[in-house]
Amino acid sequence: MEPCSGPGTLSAMDVTQEQQALREFAAERNWDQFHTPKNLAMALAGEAGELVALFQWLTPEQSKRIMDTTEAEQVRDELADVLIYALRLADVLDVDLSTALQDKVAKNHARYSIERSRDNAAKM
Amino acid sequence: MEPCSGPGTLSAMDVTQEQQALREFAAERNWDQFHTPKNLAMALAGEAGELVALFQWLTPEQSKRIMDTTEAEQVRDELADVLIYALRLADVLDVDLSTALQDKVAKNHARYSIERSRDNAAKM
Amino acid sequence: MEPCSGPGTLSAMDVTQEQQALREFAAERNWDQFHTPKNLAMALAGEAGELVALFQWLTPEQSKRIMDTTEAEQVRDELADVLIYALRLADVLDVDLSTALQDKVAKNHARYSIERSRDNAAKM
Amino acid sequence: MEPCSGPGTLSAMDVTQEQQALREFAAERNWDQFHTPKNLAMALAGEAGELVALFQWLTPEQSKRIMDTTEAEQVRDELADVLIYALRLADVLDVDLSTALQDKVAKNHARYSIERSRDNAAKM
Repeated sequence: MEPCSGPGTLSAMDVTQEQQALREFAAERNWDQFHTPKNLAMALAGEAGELVALFQWLTPEQSKRIMDTTEAEQVRDELADVLIYALRLADVLDVDLSTALQDKVAKNHARYSIERSRDNAAKM
Repeated sequence: MEPCSGPGTLSAMDVTQEQQALREFAAERNWDQFHTPKNLAMALAGEAGELVALFQWLTPEQSKRIMDTTEAEQVRDELADVLIYALRLADVLDVDLSTALQDKVAKNHARYSIERSRDNAAKM
Repeated sequence: MEPCSGPGTLSAMDVTQEQQALREFAAERNWDQFHTPKNLAMALAGEAGELVALFQWLTPEQSKRIMDTTEAEQVRDELADVLIYALRLADVLDVDLSTALQDKVAKNHARYSIERSRDNAAKM
Repeated sequence: MEPCSGPGTLSAMDVTQEQQALREFAAERNWDQFHTPKNLAMALAGEAGELVALFQWLTPEQSKRIMDTTEAEQVRDELADVLIYALRLADVLDVDLSTALQDKVAKNHARYSIERSRDNAAKM
């Protein structure tokens, strides 16, 4: 194993590995016919809907303790499903997810100055 | 820099780094008051909705070429936003996202045998 | 005001009228090519995402007063958009929305007895 | 059949009746504590996610025939659930859903001229 050269490289390598595994999983089952970008975006939205449903009747305080309840495993699974479909979608679109993340974070830094954004909720 | 010991470690390190950066971004703006698990799950669902909307009128074939259109930057940004909120949500819930991903993939392997799942669409 | 011939009839008539108007709106623009059930379900999910985003950083108490804020018009518009796509989707699928509603409400009555459901959040 | 005093009135009356029934259903179970606007918007997003998931792997053509499959009842139920939460949300926010719908349709007419919108997909 080679030494690693920094966070960017590690990130790219890791995302690539997970995507490779998911790609093989789909290919072995002949699922590429289903995994169009359109369909994967729908699947991601469906999983995000399942995730939000786990929190819908909880108070903000209760939501902080959800991992101490019987819902914990479902929360982990739904979070993983969201991530799985995000990785798959990025893969079939040939989007570098790590770079996309860095670029969006940079935009957010430019858009939400600390002064103007303090205590002021905004979309990240 | 230390040599890296394997994919699991790299993955954990990287996710941790991104989460650390996002945590600081939120803390500097005093946004922890907004970033309850409930609210972050809502934000993730909202971003997933924006992502799915980019694909809603496209044919499956058109969706494969979306990165060659003027929508490409929006697709990258929305994918990044989904990832950002997934990372933040996992962070505030103290869920190890890499492990959650591995565990869900293992479940999927057990649940969707190659034989039974060939050409048979199913939720990953 | 004239007496009307009954809630069931009125309901069906009204939904039918709105659907007829939306159907013509789409047909005049040659939008039937876009309004497949799949695409309309995506559009509905997208609008639901926009709606939930309006509430994402609000406390429960703040959410009760959202119609007194500058977000009021957006809330009305997003609610209307959700309804528009629900009506369109039901129309292209030839689902009688009023009957579907009645049937689901009847299921909910059977499923959530008053005794067992008191103070016990559940999905309607 | 008796003459009725106009579509607007009928619509308002009907929506009001359904909302009244849902309001009583919630009140009998002491669910008003859960039915904040924020929570109802989440519930609506969750149901929209379930609905979109029913279509995620279907081709556009398959989606047109979904009511001839074993998924038909689920489609009806999810459509009804979306409508139920839209009605509840409008009710707790004191939004007149019929008027909101009319107003949005009027906006759409102004925004999407027949000439400019022909064959040109746009959000309704």
